[in-house]
Amino acid sequence: MLDNIKILHGNGVHHVSVRTHVNVDPAKLKSLRQRWSVKPSEMSKKTLNPIRAIVDGMKLTPNPEKPMIALSIGDPTVFGNLPTDDTVLQAMKEAIDSHKYNGYAPSVGYQKSREVVADFYSCPEAPLDGKDVILTSGCSQAIELAISVLCNPGDNILVPRPGFSLYKTLAVSMGIQVKHYNLLPEKSWEIDLQHLESLIDDKTACLIVNNPSNPCGSVFSREHLHKILSVASRNCIPILADEIYGDMVFPGCDFQPLAPLSSDVPILSCGGLAKRWLVPGWRMGWILIHDRNDIFGTAIREGLVKLSQRILGPCTVVQGALESILNDTPPEFYQGTISFLKSNSEICYSELSTVPGLNPVMPSGAMYIMVGIEMEHFPDFQNDVEFTERLVTEQSVFCLPATAFEYPNFFRIVVTVPEEMMIEACIRIREFCARHYRPRSQDSHELDQ
Amino acid sequence: MLDNIKILHGNGVHHVSVRTHVNVDPAKLKSLRQRWSVKPSEMSKKTLNPIRAIVDGMKLTPNPEKPMIALSIGDPTVFGNLPTDDTVLQAMKEAIDSHKYNGYAPSVGYQKSREVVADFYSCPEAPLDGKDVILTSGCSQAIELAISVLCNPGDNILVPRPGFSLYKTLAVSMGIQVKHYNLLPEKSWEIDLQHLESLIDDKTACLIVNNPSNPCGSVFSREHLHKILSVASRNCIPILADEIYGDMVFPGCDFQPLAPLSSDVPILSCGGLAKRWLVPGWRMGWILIHDRNDIFGTAIREGLVKLSQRILGPCTVVQGALESILNDTPPEFYQGTISFLKSNSEICYSELSTVPGLNPVMPSGAMYIMVGIEMEHFPDFQNDVEFTERLVTEQSVFCLPATAFEYPNFFRIVVTVPEEMMIEACIRIREFCARHYRPRSQDSHELDQ
Repeated sequence: MLDNIKILHGNGVHHVSVRTHVNVDPAKLKSLRQRWSVKPSEMSKKTLNPIRAIVDGMKLTPNPEKPMIALSIGDPTVFGNLPTDDTVLQAMKEAIDSHKYNGYAPSVGYQKSREVVADFYSCPEAPLDGKDVILTSGCSQAIELAISVLCNPGDNILVPRPGFSLYKTLAVSMGIQVKHYNLLPEKSWEIDLQHLESLIDDKTACLIVNNPSNPCGSVFSREHLHKILSVASRNCIPILADEIYGDMVFPGCDFQPLAPLSSDVPILSCGGLAKRWLVPGWRMGWILIHDRNDIFGTAIREGLVKLSQRILGPCTVVQGALESILNDTPPEFYQGTISFLKSNSEICYSELSTVPGLNPVMPSGAMYIMVGIEMEHFPDFQNDVEFTERLVTEQSVFCLPATAFEYPNFFRIVVTVPEEMMIEACIRIREFCARHYRPRSQDSHELDQ
Repeated sequence: MLDNIKILHGNGVHHVSVRTHVNVDPAKLKSLRQRWSVKPSEMSKKTLNPIRAIVDGMKLTPNPEKPMIALSIGDPTVFGNLPTDDTVLQAMKEAIDSHKYNGYAPSVGYQKSREVVADFYSCPEAPLDGKDVILTSGCSQAIELAISVLCNPGDNILVPRPGFSLYKTLAVSMGIQVKHYNLLPEKSWEIDLQHLESLIDDKTACLIVNNPSNPCGSVFSREHLHKILSVASRNCIPILADEIYGDMVFPGCDFQPLAPLSSDVPILSCGGLAKRWLVPGWRMGWILIHDRNDIFGTAIREGLVKLSQRILGPCTVVQGALESILNDTPPEFYQGTISFLKSNSEICYSELSTVPGLNPVMPSGAMYIMVGIEMEHFPDFQNDVEFTERLVTEQSVFCLPATAFEYPNFFRIVVTVPEEMMIEACIRIREFCARHYRPRSQDSHELDQ
């Protein structure tokens, strides 16, 4: 090519324009192809995990004199004190020994497994059968498919604040706008319904309701759920119900799934084995399609089937084990988990509610407590991120700052840790707060007198 | 509301405009919110599976006098004649019994499991370590992540014709244009390199190379791979190497992974347990990141990590079993599978190559044979879809028409079926062809003489 140019150039002025033509235009045309330039896609750049972004930005250097206590990880299995039931493990081994679950399942799951899930969750007010169930690779994929089928770029979805960060991560990556509706800590984290309704416009494609809540541990009453459904019904908005913590509620409290309370609002209820059966790594989730008024119709169902064909569903061994997992796990297993979570929650709540400057909100379920920080009493710290960062430095206790859930000045405690660890963590948090607590000016004034 | 209108109307002309004002403007403003209208997203509508579209459109009514033989399903487990190895099942049960693999793994997989895969595929020319491996929910998700991280809407990707339909399904759903490069049946399905290069423009984000090939069963020589890499290198195009059938090649033939042959072209090699270990339902796939010239850099790696956080990787039990599956499965297992596939391929090839009107292309690996149909000799059928449809109606043998792979006038046979079924299927295909074969006019002329 260079030789050609020289020859052409040597042929004089007349050929300069030819050379220019030959050398510049094609170079422009294929400019990107002359050197390596491989950049990550816009979508990958827009897939942001706020928890990672915040935690990676924190200086988390524990106090070497105190063993680390991580109250940050929403994984009930990490400390070994909450094992799954033997029935669940046995079901897996039987599925393996049967040699029946090695091939491809349909992308939405084996028909039999879908029926098993349908039977488990069906009730007279909201009957389900196999065709109403889509099995997914964890509840995360259930949420991804539900958002993907309901929303187009430019649409918006309504998500709780504070709330689980995955909703925003997924939506933003797909070009969907996120509008946060407020939960009210003073009303046990009920939804501010007026605020919720004020956010609705003609681009609102979906309302996400997370009950029981991560990070709040709150459980909505039947009355409150009716009011939420009224807002959805009045404004004709389908609901994505993230009910992964369904049935994980404390004695005396009642988990009410959303779907049986409405016959008109179409609902995609997302759930899975992760939390209640304590096997989050197994990636077995599902979508229950509730559409008694035929508003989703076949189109949404077909859309979900199409989307499921992208990665072909969850592990077939777990699918094969589902029948026994759902039907044979003894009630004592669920009760044991729940009473442990309640006991730990009560320890944590009663310890921290007497710590000046902290305002824990007693949960009713799931596995979290949110704790408010009266920041004006902690002038050493600018915000919940600094507060929790220093809690690691000084006390080797790590809690997630609720900024990760779009809710500053709170932090979240995971209550799945062993009891003695929970107690020790509370003692250290108390010590930490006592060291940094400053009375308000009027309190100081009183002290001066 | 209707009552209100009537009353307003009854109040006379003056109020008509008021009525219009009251009823029309707010209705316009929130028009979409006054009635239910839930439609599937554009993305879900664009997620098209051509195999499903074609198969669902076919009249597949088998001949009631002949038992059905399905040579259409790319699942080696369906007939029970190709079980996975006991080592593989034992590894799963040990992972379950260890109680170590129930919690969340990192979204890209356990570090240990990533290292195990890296060690298994590492070689001096293309060394890998744990950080170069992303574990995924099946090879499908590996391909999805690889396309997602490399391509933006408006870009194009180069995919083989004939080729596996998932590339197009995924790309089109993401707004990525698909350009098909030709494979040449007369050259054992090598790539038409001139055609390939002619398709490249400045929006070309990725070249997909599938070796060994579905649907062709072809295996590229080292020389041909070098030529493919030259095209990629010259044009600065990263490669997605779909090597899910890697090492599934017949004795005498040699599978050469792409990455060791190039030090400059960055390659994402996608693979998994599905085919070689005969457990496609387990959804264990991986991406091997080969980037010795640091062209992907950290940006593509970070992009893959971010994308993996959307659904959090494959089932942890299978991850836990990986070490033993990869390291302890006896060579005899792999050899047994391969010699079975070769034997069945030879039966099928030698039977069908003597059937007038058919031109099978002998494969060198994977589990498929492509068979050309001389359509001019089968005037009863317009195309391969009709041909295969009638093969079901008359002979109860179902093969996928290669239109499903963008390659009309061929059909694909899966060679994983039991031998006696393979033989019986060939006999029936011969009978079918004999019945419908018409000599060409010049042949007829010869016959007339």
